[in-house]
Amino acid sequence: MIAKNAMMDTIRGVFERFGFDPMETPAVECTETLTGGDEESDRIIFRVAPAVRGEVKDMARDKTSLRFDLTVPLARVLAANPEIPKPFKRYQIGKIWRGERPQFGRYREFTQMDIDTIGATSLDADAEIIQVIYETLQALGVDKFVIRINDKRDVLRRLIEFGIPKERERRTLIAIDKKDKMSPEEWETAVAEASGIGLEKTKEYLWKISGENGLEESAVGELRLKTEKLGVPQSYLRYDAALVRGFSYYTGSIFEVALLEIPEIGSVFGGGRFDGLTARFSTQALPAVGASIGVDRLFAALERLGKIKKQKTLTEVLVFDLGEAFEDRYIEFLTILRKSGIATTKYLGEDKAFQAQLAYAVKQEIPYALIYGDKEKDRNVVQLKNLQSNTQQEIAIEKLEETVKTAR
Amino acid sequence: MIAKNAMMDTIRGVFERFGFDPMETPAVECTETLTGGDEESDRIIFRVAPAVRGEVKDMARDKTSLRFDLTVPLARVLAANPEIPKPFKRYQIGKIWRGERPQFGRYREFTQMDIDTIGATSLDADAEIIQVIYETLQALGVDKFVIRINDKRDVLRRLIEFGIPKERERRTLIAIDKKDKMSPEEWETAVAEASGIGLEKTKEYLWKISGENGLEESAVGELRLKTEKLGVPQSYLRYDAALVRGFSYYTGSIFEVALLEIPEIGSVFGGGRFDGLTARFSTQALPAVGASIGVDRLFAALERLGKIKKQKTLTEVLVFDLGEAFEDRYIEFLTILRKSGIATTKYLGEDKAFQAQLAYAVKQEIPYALIYGDKEKDRNVVQLKNLQSNTQQEIAIEKLEETVKTAR
Repeated sequence: MIAKNAMMDTIRGVFERFGFDPMETPAVECTETLTGGDEESDRIIFRVAPAVRGEVKDMARDKTSLRFDLTVPLARVLAANPEIPKPFKRYQIGKIWRGERPQFGRYREFTQMDIDTIGATSLDADAEIIQVIYETLQALGVDKFVIRINDKRDVLRRLIEFGIPKERERRTLIAIDKKDKMSPEEWETAVAEASGIGLEKTKEYLWKISGENGLEESAVGELRLKTEKLGVPQSYLRYDAALVRGFSYYTGSIFEVALLEIPEIGSVFGGGRFDGLTARFSTQALPAVGASIGVDRLFAALERLGKIKKQKTLTEVLVFDLGEAFEDRYIEFLTILRKSGIATTKYLGEDKAFQAQLAYAVKQEIPYALIYGDKEKDRNVVQLKNLQSNTQQEIAIEKLEETVKTAR
Repeated sequence: MIAKNAMMDTIRGVFERFGFDPMETPAVECTETLTGGDEESDRIIFRVAPAVRGEVKDMARDKTSLRFDLTVPLARVLAANPEIPKPFKRYQIGKIWRGERPQFGRYREFTQMDIDTIGATSLDADAEIIQVIYETLQALGVDKFVIRINDKRDVLRRLIEFGIPKERERRTLIAIDKKDKMSPEEWETAVAEASGIGLEKTKEYLWKISGENGLEESAVGELRLKTEKLGVPQSYLRYDAALVRGFSYYTGSIFEVALLEIPEIGSVFGGGRFDGLTARFSTQALPAVGASIGVDRLFAALERLGKIKKQKTLTEVLVFDLGEAFEDRYIEFLTILRKSGIATTKYLGEDKAFQAQLAYAVKQEIPYALIYGDKEKDRNVVQLKNLQSNTQQEIAIEKLEETVKTAR
């Protein structure tokens, strides 16, 4: 938790420097608000109901559920509070709950960190989100990644160009999305079946949307130029026409981050433009673009990459308890150290043997022990033991504050 | 949210300085784990169940619920992880959900901040929690409060002394707890009825437990001495024999904080010793003492006391967008300011009129506007407008970084 907090603080720092403000929304919302009648969402949602004398009498009454993302509740809150000045840039850290992927076993809750810019139609806002993604990963010490980008407007235009009928749109996109799970031949066949335009024309279509073909005149091409101006090295961006994740949701740019050293972990950061979402809650449709980090997945990835410094405790000094006779002194030490901002704790265990206290400090990985007993009392000193280097320093009591301050 | 985050950061700072480490536990647990079969808890709990094709088919299957405090899940996690070195001092910030008190209307979720010391029987641990409560409120700028304290061991001893039978214990305590809701006479009568020892003996009993009578030989008296040694001014502590909140839970010290200027808001910080709780989950009973802050209630209280500096945005500088011709410069300014750690955002709205941008900055309460247009380009300067004082400063571009750094 200490390392995860540090990671989240780093991310928060980047978000805030870019002008995103913290915002909170409820974890429990009306089920209808959350799903918008979407069957897909209904499959992963957890319903919530008050118990009445131990029995859930009427699950249907309240019709509330736990949120499965931070975006839908945001849209609901924005629709309910039209007075919030736009553009509005916010970030949120919060739990979400999903019933999907039973293979993850006990994991039914996740932490997400989201950024969103609401009320801006300009591609500048999309480019800024991509810049924040780039800066965030750099700030976390991750350098080997690509941001795959696509744009729904380009995709739809191409579908029309190639005569793929409207009613086959969704099926075709789902087939395109399966690229990584099939051989090239299987993939072409699957897309051809879905599109209904025949194998030859499908091959031509897939060639057209592959690589960087025709990128200059596209929406995603413009986004590239914008991000380049913002200083995002273009080697980090990869146009991917097959990227159509959660597609019904998005209306423009789509992006997601793959870590090159551990691609199997999946997307750790993803998002896009979703201009239509608030229209579900109000007549005033608000353009919006945002991205979302799966905190737990990113943390697991950083651990695998050796970017996480595990830390068992924030406590820097353990004051040993060598008898009630020294209590007043211990309180004095604790006060001095804490006033200097040093996390300090007195040993509170029952086994007061010196060895037990030492073993506790080592087990807890507390870096320093402060020792004051009969010998130290006689000479008006304390021992500051460095438990990592196993060295010891004798300090005159009146110098404790000074020593500790300079030692940091 | 900005002000609430600042409040929580202050509290977190105190907790960490005292050697409490962050820890997280799940929001969803087995219902039985949470309630322990207690009917009282069952009345306020929210059940959670996955929806299957939109219908909750079998609420009983999973038998999970949302936590209603942070203490029970902690006890469960500790019991499941016996390898955690003890004593273990942790803090947690988390949401909890309660169905009680329908008068609060939509509020079904609250944020709590808890500290707990687990694995220490010593009263030192109890005294330290009280010290942390005192230091936390001081750090928040609150000085007019009392920490009411009591100890279950004293209460039980007195009940026996006065011949109140075991089976009347709970009823008697509930009656004692109603002190503030009744006239003295009503209260005496109610306690007499509950205790069954007659009105005269009840009056004697209530006198005995009132004020500071017989405090010296009591557990709570010892706790007072300990906290005094730790530097908590004793004027902040008030012995209150009628304090028996959530009593079935506690096994020793009990305390709660009342704000003297707004007593009607109720307890903002409370806790006690609960040595028996982990015994519900494992054979190894772990002594524990802790306290809990109702974050939302405390925040509301601080607002009422004028201790909260409301802030609409963390953004310090808004870079005006006066045309695409200046885009490269804007990106340069944004980079300089953000690198200096200054939260900066470019205006992303559609209405690019100068007045619209100014109105937006004022509405959002962004303190500075950075203006660069044709006039500024010609003279190689930027205008830094202070929107609070409505003054403007002209800065040579090469001096921007320096000026901004010294201005902070």
